[in-house]
Amino acid sequence: MQSPQRPYVPEPALRRLPWYLASVQRLRAQGVEYVSSTAISKLLNVDASQIAKDLSYLNIKGKTRIGYEVAELEQGLNDFLGFHERHRAVMMGVGSLGRALITDSGLSRYGLEIVAGFDVNPEVIGTEIGGTPIYDISELKDRRAELGADIAIIAVPVENAAEVADLCVGAGIKALWNFTPFHIKTSPEITIQNTSIYAHLAVMYNRLSQ
Amino acid sequence: MQSPQRPYVPEPALRRLPWYLASVQRLRAQGVEYVSSTAISKLLNVDASQIAKDLSYLNIKGKTRIGYEVAELEQGLNDFLGFHERHRAVMMGVGSLGRALITDSGLSRYGLEIVAGFDVNPEVIGTEIGGTPIYDISELKDRRAELGADIAIIAVPVENAAEVADLCVGAGIKALWNFTPFHIKTSPEITIQNTSIYAHLAVMYNRLSQ
Repeated sequence: MQSPQRPYVPEPALRRLPWYLASVQRLRAQGVEYVSSTAISKLLNVDASQIAKDLSYLNIKGKTRIGYEVAELEQGLNDFLGFHERHRAVMMGVGSLGRALITDSGLSRYGLEIVAGFDVNPEVIGTEIGGTPIYDISELKDRRAELGADIAIIAVPVENAAEVADLCVGAGIKALWNFTPFHIKTSPEITIQNTSIYAHLAVMYNRLSQ
Repeated sequence: MQSPQRPYVPEPALRRLPWYLASVQRLRAQGVEYVSSTAISKLLNVDASQIAKDLSYLNIKGKTRIGYEVAELEQGLNDFLGFHERHRAVMMGVGSLGRALITDSGLSRYGLEIVAGFDVNPEVIGTEIGGTPIYDISELKDRRAELGADIAIIAVPVENAAEVADLCVGAGIKALWNFTPFHIKTSPEITIQNTSIYAHLAVMYNRLSQ
């Protein structure tokens, strides 16, 4: 399940590319055929020069006066971002959030396929959630390679986040997508993305209280 | 449902405070009574001086040689972050992600109560999801005040994110929690938090392909 090699793109640029994709998807739905970086800039509140620079990683260049072809840009972004491939992931913890993410069909639209869940709860081990089998967490090491999963989604209780991250790395997982508020530390060759749901709540609550 | 007024805290510090909370929750579960900023620093890979500075917003100070009292720090962080209050929110879009978030009991542990969902799909309008009523999206403006919700969670298809954000702001919503990849722009007095699920996927896929 190796992805094609892509150029290394700095993380801030990588994080902006899906915004551009969302914008061109919206434009295409509206029947727009060409778009300039200036127009995307107005939609998104990002400098047009930054957009042109970010898109240059894809080897997509706009035409003078006409701009980017919307359909080509959408295809190019989807390909470059890997959203049209299948990336196999395991779900660590199938409590309420883990279960929710397994059944969220939105993830598969962006190339993520959750092929198994792992938990410690005997009531869920051996069951299926939306067709996805749930195994005992102790079986991760034995099953990881056969599942072909490089990505682990961590949705266990926060107290267990550190040990589960270690377990995943020990089993050969290369990327951790952490939904717990714990700040996971591991070796530099492991990719970690923190989806800080609770940090976002903290910011909203503070701003609402001003 | 007004929260108590709190000092304005810069966003980077606000985002780190839940990490500290997660760490002290873990330490308390392990029976630890006191912790130094140096020890938290080692756990989290954040400078000890940064931690002391961030915690000074809470008026919590460690004692020389002893450090912070774990239980007091946990309570202080929970109070300061607003996780022990009830914050009422509406869910815009009850497709697979919206439905998942409504049924995720984890959010209520962090003070978020989803009091209603809004959608355009006649098959879900008038139903309940886990006890939460689902209304027609056109009713948001009339129902917002009676629901007492200041926060809207946006989980609609990306093509509709901009118009739904405008609808929310027009109905008196003060904070938008955006789960779509669209980069919402609105007036500066509205708080926006983007939970960029798809941006995180893009980063993981790129790093895995290296």
